[in-house]
Amino acid sequence: MSELKNDRFLRALLKEPVDVTPVWMMRQAGRYLPEYRAARARAGSFMDLCRNPELACEVTLQPLERFPLDAAILFSDILTVPDAMGLGLYFAEGEGPRFERPVRSEADIDRLGVPDPEQELGYVMDAVRLIRRELAGRVPLIGFSGSPWTLATYMVEGGSSKEYARVKGMMYDRPELMHRLLETVAEAVTAYLNAQIRAGAQAVQIFDTWGGILTPRDYREFSLRHMARIVEGLIREHEGRRVPVILFTKGGGAWLEDMAATGADALGLDWTIDIGEARTRVGDQVALQGNMDPCVLYASPERIRREVADILAAYGHGSGHVFNLGHGIHPGVDPEHAAAFIEAVHELSAPYHA
Amino acid sequence: MSELKNDRFLRALLKEPVDVTPVWMMRQAGRYLPEYRAARARAGSFMDLCRNPELACEVTLQPLERFPLDAAILFSDILTVPDAMGLGLYFAEGEGPRFERPVRSEADIDRLGVPDPEQELGYVMDAVRLIRRELAGRVPLIGFSGSPWTLATYMVEGGSSKEYARVKGMMYDRPELMHRLLETVAEAVTAYLNAQIRAGAQAVQIFDTWGGILTPRDYREFSLRHMARIVEGLIREHEGRRVPVILFTKGGGAWLEDMAATGADALGLDWTIDIGEARTRVGDQVALQGNMDPCVLYASPERIRREVADILAAYGHGSGHVFNLGHGIHPGVDPEHAAAFIEAVHELSAPYHA
Repeated sequence: MSELKNDRFLRALLKEPVDVTPVWMMRQAGRYLPEYRAARARAGSFMDLCRNPELACEVTLQPLERFPLDAAILFSDILTVPDAMGLGLYFAEGEGPRFERPVRSEADIDRLGVPDPEQELGYVMDAVRLIRRELAGRVPLIGFSGSPWTLATYMVEGGSSKEYARVKGMMYDRPELMHRLLETVAEAVTAYLNAQIRAGAQAVQIFDTWGGILTPRDYREFSLRHMARIVEGLIREHEGRRVPVILFTKGGGAWLEDMAATGADALGLDWTIDIGEARTRVGDQVALQGNMDPCVLYASPERIRREVADILAAYGHGSGHVFNLGHGIHPGVDPEHAAAFIEAVHELSAPYHA
Repeated sequence: MSELKNDRFLRALLKEPVDVTPVWMMRQAGRYLPEYRAARARAGSFMDLCRNPELACEVTLQPLERFPLDAAILFSDILTVPDAMGLGLYFAEGEGPRFERPVRSEADIDRLGVPDPEQELGYVMDAVRLIRRELAGRVPLIGFSGSPWTLATYMVEGGSSKEYARVKGMMYDRPELMHRLLETVAEAVTAYLNAQIRAGAQAVQIFDTWGGILTPRDYREFSLRHMARIVEGLIREHEGRRVPVILFTKGGGAWLEDMAATGADALGLDWTIDIGEARTRVGDQVALQGNMDPCVLYASPERIRREVADILAAYGHGSGHVFNLGHGIHPGVDPEHAAAFIEAVHELSAPYHA
């Protein structure tokens, strides 16, 4: 493997000194880029794009050709794991993800197996290996997975949901059954992330998109507990280097102390919390990633620059901050605005690392 | 006006002693009730139901015929105010609310007038008067409005939104314009709520459904500031009795201290915060309303009862708690489960008031 030419991202996650604050964007390989839309059109469906390692690699690298980003993130979907568990993922046009065989009963849960990531998810590992080769040490590659709770919401509901009637009904009425499901998914996610690390992912992020819909008690019991078991089971050193783990619970600002106690290296923040306050609360325990409102990218480059300045000032001096949006970049954003954002982070952050 | 036979709700909002914890449910007059669906079918459209005082009164009283609720809430929609401001509200089948003339430019904002509530919103005031007469002092009647920020999201987006691109674009790029819009809406809401109070509403709630999508700084500047001005402008005593004001920001758990400082009597909580922790934070400054996850109503009556017990224990002894869901009751809930919820609150709360 080639030497890393830019390791700011990994250093910041471990609170080691950096020259400027590293930056990447959730969904940086996505629909706001015309070259992504072209690749997507060539691939056919969204899942065809995910399942084709060459195309997934091409799309992963697209934002790096445009912007001086400090990390690449594997292009894939969080629902590849339940798909490999036999649920039959498909995308209905304009409707979002759906499963042919949702998990509704005890028998459905008993039937679930833990996929071998090099077999059923071999296309993801092939993409990771290919991206690492093509990156040639330019920046580190981030692997990722959905959290067990987040994956379970889709698995039980059979797709996206607004009310979470079925999954919460199961959680409230049959907690032991819900834990069995979550344990199986956690085992699958652990194997999946470890396979990504072995294939070349240099950091991993767990996306807990729906942890924030739970009460504080249920968040700890049904989401955080299972993420903590994953963190315990992950390969933490590979290729002679620490592999940092980032936990991101959308809407999880109230629970940062509990998240930090899992042993994760960094926490992702959405924009509903002040990053300076978050830093005071977690102290030296973890690094922080975030947290500009993605909607700021609809505003002018001057306004974007001021927002970046405010967030840098709120975090303050020293390492331990990876700049990012608080959620994925929206499809309607002008790529020039993303460029202004990334440039502002690098330019304005230098004094904080002097 | 008849003497109030059950004033637990008003007493709890003012932290005066009560025999048991009062309870009502957001959207208690709603689609989960077959008698509501029948009235809705008779009315024609949803807005026909809102605009007909007799039907609005009938629907308001329906849940009180079934359940021993401690308050009635006016049946209406938060978008009646922007509709009266000339935006042309309509409901596209299966699509949610839409405005014919959304507010997109400075000229659109300049054109907005502050409606006279007894004229353009006379149908709401007629409903309030009729409901008060029909209630005959059984329980108090709650009036309500959307918050300026929440109304502005619909007014600028032209309906519901997932990304809030336009309204946040305006907020970030043209803050002075956004404030002009919010000031006009706040003026209209103040007049609207005061007219409801004069017509007979005995408490009012401001629904800030979308305050939680803002950063802490923008929440204070664009949502809370304008709600605080409304609270200042409200009639606080009527018919010889205090008219309590409840502020409810969904996802606002992190900002309770700021919300309490507005002078509101009570804060509504969603389920993502522990009510005991919230009580510690706000101290004696305000009462608290909430906060069971509406999805608990999908579980068994026994499970519902345990959840009620947990929330009562978390709040602890003494007055100042109005039990409610953390958001509106879902259309798919079995009314028997709502009955079990309300019964559990009354039965299990008595020891906390002994």
